[in-house]
Amino acid sequence: MGQVVMYSSVSVDGFIADENDQPGPLFDWLTSGDVPLDESGELKVSQTSYDYTRPYWDQIGATVVGRHVFDMTDGWDGKPPGGVDHVVVVTHRPEPEGWDPEAPFHFVDGVEAAVAKAQELAGDRLVEVAAGDVGSQVLAAGLIDEVRMDVVPVVFGSGKRYFGSVQAQHLLEDPDVVIQGNRVLHLRYRVRR
Amino acid sequence: MGQVVMYSSVSVDGFIADENDQPGPLFDWLTSGDVPLDESGELKVSQTSYDYTRPYWDQIGATVVGRHVFDMTDGWDGKPPGGVDHVVVVTHRPEPEGWDPEAPFHFVDGVEAAVAKAQELAGDRLVEVAAGDVGSQVLAAGLIDEVRMDVVPVVFGSGKRYFGSVQAQHLLEDPDVVIQGNRVLHLRYRVRR
Repeated sequence: MGQVVMYSSVSVDGFIADENDQPGPLFDWLTSGDVPLDESGELKVSQTSYDYTRPYWDQIGATVVGRHVFDMTDGWDGKPPGGVDHVVVVTHRPEPEGWDPEAPFHFVDGVEAAVAKAQELAGDRLVEVAAGDVGSQVLAAGLIDEVRMDVVPVVFGSGKRYFGSVQAQHLLEDPDVVIQGNRVLHLRYRVRR
Repeated sequence: MGQVVMYSSVSVDGFIADENDQPGPLFDWLTSGDVPLDESGELKVSQTSYDYTRPYWDQIGATVVGRHVFDMTDGWDGKPPGGVDHVVVVTHRPEPEGWDPEAPFHFVDGVEAAVAKAQELAGDRLVEVAAGDVGSQVLAAGLIDEVRMDVVPVVFGSGKRYFGSVQAQHLLEDPDVVIQGNRVLHLRYRVRR
């Protein structure tokens, strides 16, 4: 089965949004470069960030997100972000009414079932898990293989945490990727087993 | 006057100790190498970490710490850590009784006065400010020039925060030092003015 990757852009102090879900400058590196990252026309990054991020995105078979993110974005209007094939939404509430059953969104109750569903959909491709509440539950359950942090040089002070509700210490390996981009430092850590 | 540097070893999620002031594996990189960092015999680091850390330590003219750290370590038994010439302790309480007046510790009420005192003592050498409650107050006051984070690959989940009580967003420059050691990633950021 594919590897499970926890991911987000994050501030130097570990926040993925402020208290009002605003990302501040966390996504600036995704829109301020010269190289189109996808066909949206909105995402443009440096060549360095492209060379790291595009192959990663191409490996993702399914993304696991929380219902909060799904609702905030109105389900990305039915089109998964970054051209991902499948989005698995962790939710304890019924799936939204009037939702196109053909849209590549799957509503699953509980993080372990969500990861299992995502792995089934992704085959041997990567499963990406959004950092924050959902990602930290998956980490606590011992199901994260790799932690990817795109660290933006800003101090938030408060907000929504990358490692959300994690309560115990978890050792990581030394990062096997350390790449300095423009307004972002790309880091990739294996979780120590 | 010398530059003011905020410093600590820190977990990937921004903690400098757990809730009980225990550092967990945050100092492992300082004791697990081959190269003595000072004459204590206790601190041994990799050659890579030595080449980064030793020149930094040699530049420090004074260190500013909080009373909590001072009390926890019993004032390092009167001998400042890392061979620093002067330690300025931020405290709202009287200085400890029976304290050797010749010891290179200075007790100052308030972070701005503490930084001023440290700069006076350091001359054109660096002033190091301990991250955490004191460091974050100095950052919020606009007095930090540089943020040094020695990032250890561990998730803490909770504890004492590197950026303690910071409430507003602060932009940093892209790091001008990114050095991978053994169980530590050395990062140095200028604070954007």
